[in-house]
Amino acid sequence: MTDTALEPPAAGEHSHHGYITDKDKYLNRLKRIEGQARGIHKMVEDEKYCIDILTQVSALTSALEAVALGLLDDHLRHCVVDAAKAGGEEAEVKLREASEAIARLVR
Amino acid sequence: MTDTALEPPAAGEHSHHGYITDKDKYLNRLKRIEGQARGIHKMVEDEKYCIDILTQVSALTSALEAVALGLLDDHLRHCVVDAAKAGGEEAEVKLREASEAIARLVR
Amino acid sequence: MTDTALEPPAAGEHSHHGYITDKDKYLNRLKRIEGQARGIHKMVEDEKYCIDILTQVSALTSALEAVALGLLDDHLRHCVVDAAKAGGEEAEVKLREASEAIARLVR
Amino acid sequence: MTDTALEPPAAGEHSHHGYITDKDKYLNRLKRIEGQARGIHKMVEDEKYCIDILTQVSALTSALEAVALGLLDDHLRHCVVDAAKAGGEEAEVKLREASEAIARLVR
Repeated sequence: MTDTALEPPAAGEHSHHGYITDKDKYLNRLKRIEGQARGIHKMVEDEKYCIDILTQVSALTSALEAVALGLLDDHLRHCVVDAAKAGGEEAEVKLREASEAIARLVR
Repeated sequence: MTDTALEPPAAGEHSHHGYITDKDKYLNRLKRIEGQARGIHKMVEDEKYCIDILTQVSALTSALEAVALGLLDDHLRHCVVDAAKAGGEEAEVKLREASEAIARLVR
Repeated sequence: MTDTALEPPAAGEHSHHGYITDKDKYLNRLKRIEGQARGIHKMVEDEKYCIDILTQVSALTSALEAVALGLLDDHLRHCVVDAAKAGGEEAEVKLREASEAIARLVR
Repeated sequence: MTDTALEPPAAGEHSHHGYITDKDKYLNRLKRIEGQARGIHKMVEDEKYCIDILTQVSALTSALEAVALGLLDDHLRHCVVDAAKAGGEEAEVKLREASEAIARLVR
């Protein structure tokens, strides 16, 4: 799964999405989140005490929220700001997308 | 990681936590959740479009919420009901624990 | 408006819902919540700065959550515990209701 | 409380916050929210069934979320877009404020 990290990106493929200010920080957090999910699976397998499992689920949810808020902040600072400067239909699309993403996070 | 599933549980170790009504259902869901976390890691690695990543984070959060609500329902139906019948300090402890777990999920 | 608190309840009408451990505490909090809602209305009317309005909306949401968690705790301690002791269909109904109410709060 | 609606705004006082695209829509929603809060107060006073009160609290929370998401969308479309075009420190401040407001709504 980490193979792709060793390959160079296909030329230009995602140059326009280079908005993530600190990619390694996100990759580390998401590795930890994967580990947390694996840990919860193990806890259910071992029939750990339900309240302790729920505590870990809440911790995982908080970690995911922090990632989402970070990505959204990066997105506003780059994609939305650029689109705002450009104006027109593209700005409208980016703003609608951002508001819809925020609504999904809040609900 | 799934080795433990093949081992018998240590004698009596968690026999008193056999509250999970459908353990396989939870294990399958949590496997899927691990896969979703891995997928989000891959999306950041590949610098996918931020809004698409956020959509997957919201989906993962919803999946976690569903697991948490299921576990909590099982917990109320078994541990809390049993403690309520027994009464006394144990009932008080279980109720406080349950309320605190609910608060962590809501906030 | 608080007159009803001084009157005896109509015979049997809500004697079975006397589960609220500290009714005045809830009434005071809900009075404050009404005031917060009125304040937000005023802020929009006066076209206050959007971020300041959002801060007040978040504070109001937190206050509501605290009321909901308190009521739910009372409900578990009284209705659900009583139903658990009685057992049967009534216990099943109360548990399902409680889980559904928790799910509405979490989502 | 509605007196202020009859007074003209102090000259220029909030001309720079005229970002709300449909003020009457928000004022109507917030009036309804006040009514919902009052209704919940009445339900506690009358010792209505706890689950029914919780249902109303969830409905009120959803109504508040809808207002917050609407205000945030307006804010992004006006204040943040304008600041993005202007650039500099002001843009930075507006973006940080917006991200913090989103974080308060999500948590």
